[in-house]
Amino acid sequence: MIFKYLLPAKNGEEYTMQFLLEVVDILTNYVRKTFDRSTKVLDFHHPHQLLEGMEGFSLELCDQPESLEQILVDCRDTLKYGVRTGHPRFFNQLSSGLDIIGLAGEWLTSTANTNMFTYEIAPVFVLMEQLTLKKMREIIGWPNGEGDGIFSPGGAISNMYSVMVARYKHYPEVKIKGMAAAPRLVLFTSEHSHYSIKKASAVLGFGTENLILLKTDERGRVIPADLEAKVIDAKQKGFVPVFVNATAGSTVYGAFDPINEIADICEKYNIWLHVDGAWGGGLLMSRKHRHKLNGVERANSVTWNPHKMMGVPLQCSAILVREKGLLQGCNSMCAGYLFQPDKQYDVTYDTGDKAIQCGRHVDIFKFWLMWKSKGTIGFEKHIDRCLELSEYLYHKIKNREGYEMVFQGEPQHTNVCFWYIPPSLRLLPDGEEKRQRLHKVAPKIKAMMMECGTTMVGYQPQGDKVNFFRMVVSNPAVTRSDIDFLIDEIERLGQDL
Amino acid sequence: MIFKYLLPAKNGEEYTMQFLLEVVDILTNYVRKTFDRSTKVLDFHHPHQLLEGMEGFSLELCDQPESLEQILVDCRDTLKYGVRTGHPRFFNQLSSGLDIIGLAGEWLTSTANTNMFTYEIAPVFVLMEQLTLKKMREIIGWPNGEGDGIFSPGGAISNMYSVMVARYKHYPEVKIKGMAAAPRLVLFTSEHSHYSIKKASAVLGFGTENLILLKTDERGRVIPADLEAKVIDAKQKGFVPVFVNATAGSTVYGAFDPINEIADICEKYNIWLHVDGAWGGGLLMSRKHRHKLNGVERANSVTWNPHKMMGVPLQCSAILVREKGLLQGCNSMCAGYLFQPDKQYDVTYDTGDKAIQCGRHVDIFKFWLMWKSKGTIGFEKHIDRCLELSEYLYHKIKNREGYEMVFQGEPQHTNVCFWYIPPSLRLLPDGEEKRQRLHKVAPKIKAMMMECGTTMVGYQPQGDKVNFFRMVVSNPAVTRSDIDFLIDEIERLGQDL
Repeated sequence: MIFKYLLPAKNGEEYTMQFLLEVVDILTNYVRKTFDRSTKVLDFHHPHQLLEGMEGFSLELCDQPESLEQILVDCRDTLKYGVRTGHPRFFNQLSSGLDIIGLAGEWLTSTANTNMFTYEIAPVFVLMEQLTLKKMREIIGWPNGEGDGIFSPGGAISNMYSVMVARYKHYPEVKIKGMAAAPRLVLFTSEHSHYSIKKASAVLGFGTENLILLKTDERGRVIPADLEAKVIDAKQKGFVPVFVNATAGSTVYGAFDPINEIADICEKYNIWLHVDGAWGGGLLMSRKHRHKLNGVERANSVTWNPHKMMGVPLQCSAILVREKGLLQGCNSMCAGYLFQPDKQYDVTYDTGDKAIQCGRHVDIFKFWLMWKSKGTIGFEKHIDRCLELSEYLYHKIKNREGYEMVFQGEPQHTNVCFWYIPPSLRLLPDGEEKRQRLHKVAPKIKAMMMECGTTMVGYQPQGDKVNFFRMVVSNPAVTRSDIDFLIDEIERLGQDL
Repeated sequence: MIFKYLLPAKNGEEYTMQFLLEVVDILTNYVRKTFDRSTKVLDFHHPHQLLEGMEGFSLELCDQPESLEQILVDCRDTLKYGVRTGHPRFFNQLSSGLDIIGLAGEWLTSTANTNMFTYEIAPVFVLMEQLTLKKMREIIGWPNGEGDGIFSPGGAISNMYSVMVARYKHYPEVKIKGMAAAPRLVLFTSEHSHYSIKKASAVLGFGTENLILLKTDERGRVIPADLEAKVIDAKQKGFVPVFVNATAGSTVYGAFDPINEIADICEKYNIWLHVDGAWGGGLLMSRKHRHKLNGVERANSVTWNPHKMMGVPLQCSAILVREKGLLQGCNSMCAGYLFQPDKQYDVTYDTGDKAIQCGRHVDIFKFWLMWKSKGTIGFEKHIDRCLELSEYLYHKIKNREGYEMVFQGEPQHTNVCFWYIPPSLRLLPDGEEKRQRLHKVAPKIKAMMMECGTTMVGYQPQGDKVNFFRMVVSNPAVTRSDIDFLIDEIERLGQDL
């Protein structure tokens, strides 16, 4: 049986339904196993192994069609050799978990297969986006949820939007005349901030050397006095400070920059304040934890990725802008073939010209559906629970033999950063030899974890600190027993290093 | 029943399976109806109607959870008030159709819910992307398929990549120093090209006035002599020509710019040549039609959207670059927390640092799976068939009473552009009154089509030409009878205007 018997083929209905149900059977089995702790997180293979082809599974593309039976095998094998990001012991990324309602939402989105650029072909989704963005702005604390925003393909692009809009607000002529029309503009962000701010400064033509990195305290939070000193210094050199990024939940430490103090400085010097809440924005849903973002309502723009802390399937990231009209002003090109002014409906609902994309994937539905199904309080419970689990881990290891915390005190977010020190290193004196040996520990343990397939957790160096583990929790399937398992596994794999 | 009984809840397996199967039932019913010509293409409602809420369906988000029964109703209603972009009579967009294999691929992608940035968490998808991009480069005609590329969130972003990479090739210091490090750079594109080139020039800091528009012939193809004259003129003014975009399949006319002649000029003046084949790239799969892109192998970069002419579900767009290493050089920031050099596998497979995104949606699987299932020859047949259907339409209306073609001669792509002239206008003398009245015809017919829900086709003005219909075919479900239906419908709705 090959593809040409499927719809739109004549009498293709029966085969189509049969084929789709067989696919669904593969997928629901995968879902079932994802939540089963006796299943591995991954079945690791090196690139050359997969490229050479596994039994019955070849990645090569051919001139001739494959049978539908083989297509089903291909689906099964693709999942088999992948990574179960929804597994309760997958801690590797800020995005994890497999929300069933979100999954259903994505299946529906793919079936609707449409595009966000006009109300004309995505009426329901366009309105859902509008309502959801308004709700998010209300939660940020902007009066009546006024303002603007759009869902974008990820936090890096959302952050890029913020820099673009800041530039447009201060130097609208750059849109037409280019960067030559502006003086030398400088941007500020923490040395702990996400690399997307640096990418944006390169992409948009500012240049990475015009992004000034701010010092942080021991916990990875920006020191506001350093910002002010650097703003003054830049102005004295004749540069124009135009944009400050405050991170709400940094990638590695989970640190929250002090937004109110930063906002004071931005107001004083008339600088755009962006809050990158890609990771930490979710905490706004929690009455207990939202104080960590105090001052966020003073930001000019906010990035907030529901696909991270809120467990929405990838991709789902919003850029929210306090002032209405800027996104449109910055990006509109009024393409006649898409945004006809003489349509029969209110064309202000055609949001496509606000975007830097033309076609835009429907990222809203799964999020909207999850919100419907959980309610605001469901997200709050989820977030509070993840933070409790992190506290549990923190208290478990802070005084445990063989562990050292990368920074002291309870983490602000779910990020718990620590070194595991194998017995053989514990008695070594501090110094370069110990550092060098410790630097190799996390990569070795991680490699063994992946070979065994039992769990996954991230590691990295930061500044002058050698490789350490960064544990994060965002998956609702995680329990204390999974945290215990991770620690046991690190000790099992690391004890003889 | 509410969401908290679903997995990861204890004993949640049964409810989860039951819920997902009920969702699948809604989706397969939708699929069935999509191919059924007795079903409407859409059930049109104005924004205020949907915002006020339809019976049993409210878009508002609440604090409290909704029942799973209501979630299923929400799913059903979301589809009910949407647009069936896979319906055989939906001709509104360059992307249309609902490929069953592609759909299965998207369902699997959502279930895998992972991220393209590292081999670590997307081993199979990363390799599929690499192999598929190589295959596409082979088809373009680059020796051994060498070069580079990446899938991006749509053609506009792919085109933006091309401008970025061109800038990096000629002025790599801009990455660090910003646009101030370069002389005044100018870009060239046809007045018929997609608006994303203009967006890119604004976003990247060139400024839209430094994008020079090229004249086209009556068919919408760039006049190479105009390019050369404008290059010389720019150089005389002291500007530096750095980028030329040649469109392979323009959005409205479906025109193919003469790539070889443009490439001669680009080589002579050392200018980056990009081919925007977002729409026309698919014709490379057809031995009969690929000559329209002759010279594409001389391009430095190519945009090619499988989600348009090749019927892959949204989103699926590739930017392909002839010279290896440029994408990486242009965009890499070496974030330590993601791209650790000390992983256990060959980290050259971690492609994330080539991208301007951090997280990147998996767009490859559905495409790879469709290629497996159809083979290269399946795509070729699909493309040849769509072009035959357009020829059929062209021949049907070119001498038909009440029709006027926007340009003469057989279309190069599936775009057929025409005015329908209602009987009341046919005897009017040419002139401003007729123009003004004709300008209103297409929007009126389109509005009625949407109210009736029978079919959808695009219209727009272009230059000094008043609103005309742009018919395109990219959906494999379309037959001659659907083309006939469209014409009947235009005449039925337009005869009394």
